[in-house]
Amino acid sequence: MPEMRMETSRVTHVRQLLRERKYRTLSVDLLRWHPADIAEVLEDLEPSERLLALRLLPDEVAGEVLAEMEESSAREILDDISPERLADILEDIQDDDAAALLEDVPDALREEVIALMEAEEAEDVRERLSYPENSAGRLMTADVVRLRRRWTVAETLDYLRHAAQTLGSVYYLYVVDEDDHLVGVVPLRALVTAAPEKTIREIMTPNVVRVNVFDDQEIVADLAAKYNFVALPVVDSEERLVGVITIDDLVDVLEEEATEDIQRLGGSEPLGTAYFATPIRTMIRKRIGWLMLLFVGGTLTGSVIRLFEDITTQFTALTIFIPLLIGTGGNAGSQTVATVIRALALGEVEFHEIFHVVLREATTASTIGLILGGIAFVRALLWHTGYEIAWVVALSLPFITVWAAIIGAMIPLVADRLGIDPTVISGPFISTSVDATGLAIYFTIARLILM
Amino acid sequence: MPEMRMETSRVTHVRQLLRERKYRTLSVDLLRWHPADIAEVLEDLEPSERLLALRLLPDEVAGEVLAEMEESSAREILDDISPERLADILEDIQDDDAAALLEDVPDALREEVIALMEAEEAEDVRERLSYPENSAGRLMTADVVRLRRRWTVAETLDYLRHAAQTLGSVYYLYVVDEDDHLVGVVPLRALVTAAPEKTIREIMTPNVVRVNVFDDQEIVADLAAKYNFVALPVVDSEERLVGVITIDDLVDVLEEEATEDIQRLGGSEPLGTAYFATPIRTMIRKRIGWLMLLFVGGTLTGSVIRLFEDITTQFTALTIFIPLLIGTGGNAGSQTVATVIRALALGEVEFHEIFHVVLREATTASTIGLILGGIAFVRALLWHTGYEIAWVVALSLPFITVWAAIIGAMIPLVADRLGIDPTVISGPFISTSVDATGLAIYFTIARLILM
Repeated sequence: MPEMRMETSRVTHVRQLLRERKYRTLSVDLLRWHPADIAEVLEDLEPSERLLALRLLPDEVAGEVLAEMEESSAREILDDISPERLADILEDIQDDDAAALLEDVPDALREEVIALMEAEEAEDVRERLSYPENSAGRLMTADVVRLRRRWTVAETLDYLRHAAQTLGSVYYLYVVDEDDHLVGVVPLRALVTAAPEKTIREIMTPNVVRVNVFDDQEIVADLAAKYNFVALPVVDSEERLVGVITIDDLVDVLEEEATEDIQRLGGSEPLGTAYFATPIRTMIRKRIGWLMLLFVGGTLTGSVIRLFEDITTQFTALTIFIPLLIGTGGNAGSQTVATVIRALALGEVEFHEIFHVVLREATTASTIGLILGGIAFVRALLWHTGYEIAWVVALSLPFITVWAAIIGAMIPLVADRLGIDPTVISGPFISTSVDATGLAIYFTIARLILM
Repeated sequence: MPEMRMETSRVTHVRQLLRERKYRTLSVDLLRWHPADIAEVLEDLEPSERLLALRLLPDEVAGEVLAEMEESSAREILDDISPERLADILEDIQDDDAAALLEDVPDALREEVIALMEAEEAEDVRERLSYPENSAGRLMTADVVRLRRRWTVAETLDYLRHAAQTLGSVYYLYVVDEDDHLVGVVPLRALVTAAPEKTIREIMTPNVVRVNVFDDQEIVADLAAKYNFVALPVVDSEERLVGVITIDDLVDVLEEEATEDIQRLGGSEPLGTAYFATPIRTMIRKRIGWLMLLFVGGTLTGSVIRLFEDITTQFTALTIFIPLLIGTGGNAGSQTVATVIRALALGEVEFHEIFHVVLREATTASTIGLILGGIAFVRALLWHTGYEIAWVVALSLPFITVWAAIIGAMIPLVADRLGIDPTVISGPFISTSVDATGLAIYFTIARLILM
């Protein structure tokens, strides 16, 4: 909370200085803040103010601020800034951040900017962009310190002192052989505490956990989370060291994946941008597809009701329970889906365990269904629907909840097996498909008991 | 995938060696793996095998393995292991990991184990446990290197070399004054690359971002994510340095919070344990509460139908559209809820923006509702329900989707404002409350048009 108040007052402060054209004061103030804080303030400014404020920052800081900003806000700035300034800015930040900023820029502008950059930096950015989106190659920086096994600790410390400028956030130092093959790792901490005359070979850990340059970012993030690494080395198909991925980028990946999962579970395509930064037409576009598909699927429920019109017209009291029964089926299905999807994401369940999962879910759901059936029985009697209809409702509930749980457990597991993101086809999709079948179960039981 | 196959074959391998009582071979093999890998294998073993395998590990490794295991599997082991061995194991791991393991152990056993530990380690663990659950004080380790401003770089490196054993995963070194107040930070990297004769005062960064010992773990994790820190210093209310929290623990916090959010959105209390490690009776307990509440709330839909019995008995075709309309309302509500909840979690929206959010959601929903209304109109005509009923359905849809979006946007924001976790009362709760009101909207429009 105090954090937030601070942010609002910062925005007011920056606005005022801009209005009063006190640019020198503003530039001094901005430089006192962390780039992540400057980014937050800039996001809350009008586009014209934003551009003005960015102009007051040195290239390196401007680059870090852009890298910390929401994609959509950053893109607005990139559209307005001169290609020359942009090239200067990108030269001064890490190649992975520069590539991320250029990712969604129109091809022509991207080429123009890269051509304006210095040869070495331009080469690095071009290489980053040559890897598929969401791959380790995109996420890594090629800026990595390489040690040799024969070096002593003292020599290495000396080397690091001279390489200081190019040293990013280094926590581990990687050891390579003559052909650049990754052969070991030395935590910076181990180097600092080792006797100066020891060789790298003596203090390094061989068998380094590594990722391939084409590995998906989610695999990389999960690996870092599992082993508690703050950085992971990236190798090519010949096991040559090509870069390093640091934990800050992986934390972003983990948050991004969780956001996508949650938005998909809610039955919407992931927005991919911050809430207020998303235009309403985009929100509509991301939602209408699913909703329309679900709606057309949902018309099946109408067909089911028409199919059983004989019994609903004869026993109109059956209608009273329609929303309750399909609602409960949908809720039971959602519980299973959310649990199974998260278990899949965390690697706790796999496809070959499908029968075990279905059994667990069905057992859970049948207990729950029986209890709810009991409640429904009493409720029906209180509505004076008569014993027969009360029995129909009470019996339908366990069948519907078990059915919903089975579908809710199987669909994500099968989807995952087929290489489809389970969150994409689950959630509301399952509740809609359970709706029509749940109704069919209800009316069938009604026919058996009442007719 | 190859990762997974490796894990399965490892389990088989361990099982076989245990069965053949080749304990020495097994202990050598286990020590070649990372504690996180040993933990994964142990989780897949039977409890008796697990205990046997753990017995083969030195205390320190056993401790790290326990710290990496799923809470529920670790707890099973803690129940079976002797208090003496447990005390030995906990002495050898970090105080925060030891505290986390003892968190859910019965009070009597916990006291017994702590009493068996060496005084210093026991004191640290006791202190960890004295802080509230999910606070920074629980998550931090008190094991932190303290530098003084007057030291030179050379002196500091020398000091670190002698403190090597107690040096955990150190990335930043914190600087304190005589009263232990936090006054600066030196990244290990900066220390390594600085000239030996410089003083800490010259190379340190003052104004260190810090957290209070009572801050919630979610705040700490968000802060680390925002500023890309791999560690955060923890201070008491007098700004004295009391510990440090490292990124690996915070990554776990971020994953845990996302899991809770997803499970709650699915209408279930968070399980808090791995999928297969959760007993079925726990699954039932975590789900039945919500489902029962939703069910009782859902009976409202029955009351609404009874309230409008005059019109439904006269125009039975209205029944056909009941599931479709409330399903669509529920889906539209879910989309809004998931989007708003995630935006809240990421700090993208706040309560004071409620009108802005409601307006966005209502605008989006009205467009979607009008489109779906058009489709429904055609579908109704194809079912030969007549123009009047087709109009009722088509008109109801935009009203229902807008209503669902307004409720779906307001409830999470209001809940958050009241200090209630918005995921707890959202999801299925909103769709159920939208069900009854959606029906009322539908039947009211029907009355106005048909009667």
